[in-house]
Amino acid sequence: MMQTESAQAALPYDRVYNFSAGPVMLPTEVLEEARDELLNFRGTGMSVMEMSHRGKDYEAIHNETVDNLRKLMNVPDDWAVLFLQGGASLQNALVPMNLKQEGKIPNYIDTGYWGNKSIGDAKKLGPVHIAWTSEPTNFDSVPDDDEPQFTDSPAYVYYTSNETIGGVDYLRDAKFNTDALVVCDASSNILSRPMDLSRYDVIFAGAQKNQGIAGVATVIVSPRALEIAAKQDLPLMFSWTKAHKENSIHNTCPCWAIYMCGLYYKWLLKNGGVDWIYPINERKAKRVYDVIDASEGFYKPHMKEKNRSRMNISFQLPNEELTDKFLAEAKPLKMSTLKGHRSVGGVRASMYNAFPESGSELLASFMVDFAKRNG
Amino acid sequence: MMQTESAQAALPYDRVYNFSAGPVMLPTEVLEEARDELLNFRGTGMSVMEMSHRGKDYEAIHNETVDNLRKLMNVPDDWAVLFLQGGASLQNALVPMNLKQEGKIPNYIDTGYWGNKSIGDAKKLGPVHIAWTSEPTNFDSVPDDDEPQFTDSPAYVYYTSNETIGGVDYLRDAKFNTDALVVCDASSNILSRPMDLSRYDVIFAGAQKNQGIAGVATVIVSPRALEIAAKQDLPLMFSWTKAHKENSIHNTCPCWAIYMCGLYYKWLLKNGGVDWIYPINERKAKRVYDVIDASEGFYKPHMKEKNRSRMNISFQLPNEELTDKFLAEAKPLKMSTLKGHRSVGGVRASMYNAFPESGSELLASFMVDFAKRNG
Repeated sequence: MMQTESAQAALPYDRVYNFSAGPVMLPTEVLEEARDELLNFRGTGMSVMEMSHRGKDYEAIHNETVDNLRKLMNVPDDWAVLFLQGGASLQNALVPMNLKQEGKIPNYIDTGYWGNKSIGDAKKLGPVHIAWTSEPTNFDSVPDDDEPQFTDSPAYVYYTSNETIGGVDYLRDAKFNTDALVVCDASSNILSRPMDLSRYDVIFAGAQKNQGIAGVATVIVSPRALEIAAKQDLPLMFSWTKAHKENSIHNTCPCWAIYMCGLYYKWLLKNGGVDWIYPINERKAKRVYDVIDASEGFYKPHMKEKNRSRMNISFQLPNEELTDKFLAEAKPLKMSTLKGHRSVGGVRASMYNAFPESGSELLASFMVDFAKRNG
Repeated sequence: MMQTESAQAALPYDRVYNFSAGPVMLPTEVLEEARDELLNFRGTGMSVMEMSHRGKDYEAIHNETVDNLRKLMNVPDDWAVLFLQGGASLQNALVPMNLKQEGKIPNYIDTGYWGNKSIGDAKKLGPVHIAWTSEPTNFDSVPDDDEPQFTDSPAYVYYTSNETIGGVDYLRDAKFNTDALVVCDASSNILSRPMDLSRYDVIFAGAQKNQGIAGVATVIVSPRALEIAAKQDLPLMFSWTKAHKENSIHNTCPCWAIYMCGLYYKWLLKNGGVDWIYPINERKAKRVYDVIDASEGFYKPHMKEKNRSRMNISFQLPNEELTDKFLAEAKPLKMSTLKGHRSVGGVRASMYNAFPESGSELLASFMVDFAKRNG
């Protein structure tokens, strides 16, 4: 267990490897920075939590954070970058409201739990067309680009780029056979790999997986989507247009959550941005999938190989007793929150941007050892 | 300036007296606690910011926080206590949506900036009746209980218990001449004085003034209001019913903001709750109003005396030059964010629950001295 010991030694403050699907591990140095300036932010005499959201000290933090997300994702100047409350879940309702177009029907691709939730909310607001679903095969896959069947002139085409519960991922910027607006819930893989923004019109994501903490969601909107949103007459907090006009300070914004995103973005940028983290994420996931594939069926993944998520590795053990034993033995090795989602069971190892590579080494070596002893 | 020096000495970490209208000062010991457990919360090996919102560690924090707000406000068991994202501003839209009743019109009382905003959002969702307004007298007052003129059978009666910009406050639990549901935006005075919940059906409040930080709002709902809300068919994040059913963990909740409320509530409870803080708030405000009243017109308050806010003290100096001088001299004395809201000008001193009494002493003595030198 040499490898195991060294991996454990790498975690300061007696911290654990937290495989949670969200909220999740943050870089230790980001937490240290937040701690060190918590009572007095850089000589201002106050915590970021205490600052007026309209004061110049907070505004500097806010603007730098927005700019850094633009940099990290190469967002063109004429696109909106919003930081909104309510998580990705609120966007499930705000997408159909902001992109409403007379006589046009939203088209959804259904790949699991989150796709389903989005469809549920959209249906409360109007008719919806399901352009593709993997329900018949228990949500084990995502479509190829040419598979979804769209209506004529959809209001927009909607998909979930990574399903955290099932653990399926497009692993690409989909290019569907449509000229319609493309809306993507990228909550669980935003910033984990390079994205070609020309393939999207709206990309939204809760921050608590790959870019910060719970309590804020980022919403990136193309000029042609903004044009449609501008035609709606919505209450303040439903309106992308109003948020965009006031740079997301249209009400008291979640200053601390935005500040934490800001520290996270600086950590990413300092190290080389998405181009730096992408191969690390690939390695972390491959290490665990390799053990699964070499286990001769001891570990059974849920998903089709070509759609395996890099962020959420979901698999079954031969039976529930072994699953419980696996989880019980992992805990004293400082591996936490490995239990699968209640709807699928088994084990789920989520490893987002800030999850340390040493944690994936520890998990992989433990899995090999566990299979040897119990296979 | 003896008093001034001792007041300054009272602030550790070189912190300032922050008179912001929101977000605002937090108790130093609350910030210290947050800092000390930021990298490893009580042996869990993770920050509260990193915890799964469905794990038992976070759930214990969450449940304790909800329970403590119930204790602090004597909320009966059959009422809902929700912690929601989107601030009070989102509730401006959710109130009319959750309390919609066929053929019944919402009745609003208009006492300034926030009342106005609420009315604006409600009007986007249906017809609205204005039952009373202080617009003709530049929002200098609130109505007596018998002044508003309601429609027959209103959907609900809505008022803002304290206007942060104007600085008017009911200073009482209004008892209007109606049996309708009563909805109150208490963002800026919740927990600052005892409240009789039998006078209300919905009390909502952004947390960043009197109970925590930006990014969460508390919404307290009576059984008869819950009954009406249960009849609506709303998207997940609009629905009080869904939030209530899952104890506000119907999506990834803003865990850190709720945790900060939890620390704040424990600080209040430890010291004696609302009965403890209420006379302190009265003293802090009286100290400054006494200087205003004794200044022979040098300091001119905006509001009618009987409606003067204890939370937001808004006043004018004889001219803009003196206002600028006042603000410039206050700053090196460690008094920050005293500038009046752009819509009314002058000076605004906001002193919520966690604003230290020593800060009101410092401000009062500075005001006396400043008037002497410039009057």
